[in-house]
Amino acid sequence: MEDKHMLMIPGPTPVPEKVLLAMAKHPIGHRSSDFSKIIAEINDGLKWLHQTKNEVLSLNVSGTGAMEASIINFVSPGDRVLVGVNGKFGDRWAQICEVFGLNTTRITAEWGQPLDTEEFRTHLEGDTNKEIKAVIITHSETSTGVLNDLETINKYIKDHGTALSIVDAVTSLGAYNIPIDDLDLDVVASGSQKGYMIPPGLGFICVSDRAWQAYETCKFPRFYMDLGKYKKANLKASTPFTPPVNLMYGLQTALQMMQRESLEGIFARHLRLTKATRAAVQALGLKLFAADDCASTAVTAIEPSPLSAEDIRKIMSSKYNIALAGGQDHLKGKIFRIGHLGFVSDRDVLTGIACLESTLTELGHKVQPQTGVKAAAAVMV
Amino acid sequence: MEDKHMLMIPGPTPVPEKVLLAMAKHPIGHRSSDFSKIIAEINDGLKWLHQTKNEVLSLNVSGTGAMEASIINFVSPGDRVLVGVNGKFGDRWAQICEVFGLNTTRITAEWGQPLDTEEFRTHLEGDTNKEIKAVIITHSETSTGVLNDLETINKYIKDHGTALSIVDAVTSLGAYNIPIDDLDLDVVASGSQKGYMIPPGLGFICVSDRAWQAYETCKFPRFYMDLGKYKKANLKASTPFTPPVNLMYGLQTALQMMQRESLEGIFARHLRLTKATRAAVQALGLKLFAADDCASTAVTAIEPSPLSAEDIRKIMSSKYNIALAGGQDHLKGKIFRIGHLGFVSDRDVLTGIACLESTLTELGHKVQPQTGVKAAAAVMV
Repeated sequence: MEDKHMLMIPGPTPVPEKVLLAMAKHPIGHRSSDFSKIIAEINDGLKWLHQTKNEVLSLNVSGTGAMEASIINFVSPGDRVLVGVNGKFGDRWAQICEVFGLNTTRITAEWGQPLDTEEFRTHLEGDTNKEIKAVIITHSETSTGVLNDLETINKYIKDHGTALSIVDAVTSLGAYNIPIDDLDLDVVASGSQKGYMIPPGLGFICVSDRAWQAYETCKFPRFYMDLGKYKKANLKASTPFTPPVNLMYGLQTALQMMQRESLEGIFARHLRLTKATRAAVQALGLKLFAADDCASTAVTAIEPSPLSAEDIRKIMSSKYNIALAGGQDHLKGKIFRIGHLGFVSDRDVLTGIACLESTLTELGHKVQPQTGVKAAAAVMV
Repeated sequence: MEDKHMLMIPGPTPVPEKVLLAMAKHPIGHRSSDFSKIIAEINDGLKWLHQTKNEVLSLNVSGTGAMEASIINFVSPGDRVLVGVNGKFGDRWAQICEVFGLNTTRITAEWGQPLDTEEFRTHLEGDTNKEIKAVIITHSETSTGVLNDLETINKYIKDHGTALSIVDAVTSLGAYNIPIDDLDLDVVASGSQKGYMIPPGLGFICVSDRAWQAYETCKFPRFYMDLGKYKKANLKASTPFTPPVNLMYGLQTALQMMQRESLEGIFARHLRLTKATRAAVQALGLKLFAADDCASTAVTAIEPSPLSAEDIRKIMSSKYNIALAGGQDHLKGKIFRIGHLGFVSDRDVLTGIACLESTLTELGHKVQPQTGVKAAAAVMV
């Protein structure tokens, strides 16, 4: 059946009809006063979503572009940085740091395990010469569904006093409570096709005053990703370069919808969907890849062994038109991932679980009818 | 009156309804086989549009991002480059080169005048040590409506034998015949919100084999803009990072429309609209900012002195809901610019000229009724 596709991957996430229709409006000039009003409204909305007084900068890049910009504006070649690596995206951060010639220390954990906050403490406390200029933490590791303990690691960074906290919030912003100013985070990067409920194409970076001070002495050459240019333009409700006008229409609409739902509502919904998904997966006798105390509210990874993760994905796709994500790199075939962030409702999760249940039955996995749906529904009461 | 806006600026340009509706479709997973088919079709279409066998890479960036990527992948810090500068975008290229520490020689001309090809010849012939690694030419200088003589300058580059030609075709690609392989151009950059008839958000770079050889020894660090990653992905009908899925839907549709019109049809239309606009402007007693033999087919700049360019733009906007572009930098207030590239028809130009005529009359400029429309229509017969 055509056009019955349902996205349950951790990005791109489903997009509300209101947002799709907003994006289908004719573009207007990006230097017009009408567009300036849209930028001003978006900037206010982004500050609300980030719970910050800092400027939130919108770049015409993917999440990876936002990651690179978060590095090359705040440290300098040869600087020492700590990078938490317990999944594909932590690894990507480390790769970026290495490509740009930073003295990169990887603090690793097995994929599926959270980062050990004590390792960060040890490194930071041992750095009496204050050589560590930044600590990079992937908050929600999309590849494994692990939520790292940002708050504790950030406390050690603040105790250090010099290092900046650079946070990958790509799949946690808008899915988990990150009170940026209260936590005193320095650089927080995210992307549009996740909690924002709009298609890919925009990256966002929230920058603290402390980070702007570091910017002043940063020695990397940069032009398109020079965040100083974006800040200057932001303050005039403008952009340094041509913005993706139609995506900005979508963002404006999505932020309005999010404000109507409220931050509390959004976070409670993501937590409820996560708990429901996890309860259902366990009731169905499958293994959760991440433990309860480090479960991402954006995506749940499942290790279905002895069943094949790819067999499950294939039937979910061919029979029920539901796209699930597979494992990445060495986890390919071993896990599958259910995205439940952004424009996802209780109904969507029940739907996904019902179809998963039927898929498992088809694959010969012994399941009592309605076990998963019942467990998920119990969380939603 | 609401929603009666008409864009006559050189970007964003008007977007066809088919493209807008394509962008309003639900996103699908960018790693799905269905999306891979879309990428494959787009890649073929881009090669057709660029008249090339080279890979054409699509980046999630604005035109400026494509400019930067065209530099940092093919030369190295300290390399000598020649940059043609006769307007805001030539100046931006030089700025990028300078920020990245290139030994930058600006070959300048007054804004509104074309670059002197002989100056390029002299520099290139004098470079017997082959120190010049690249020559950067803004083909259609959007800020002034001047089309630089790419073919002649490129001939001198080929005579030099070492330097790469790096071409800004942002407002000429899809508006003027640039047979990339026949001309043997090395790096050609463009942006989506121009001749492509889609909103801003995508940058394109066409890369020759010779440029890929230079890429191998390029010493700039880069990750998000590492074009090698894009080439490798392109060959598998994929992308290295999450692409702007909905803009890609729009691009797919726009390329289909362009193929139905044919390259000959597209170029002939742009030439006709340019001639019609210029004939009308002259008939209305206003001064064309660029001469006939170097007129861009994307945008026409007009010097309305003693009338104020801003007064004209204001009435065109408030009374007729037509957005015209103003002058940039020192030309602000001195010129205005009419965009006629992309999804622009004969009817649109007649409309714009009719409204300009009425605006001039309102400002006390003596015009015989229908002078401009008549002159434009005569070109369209």
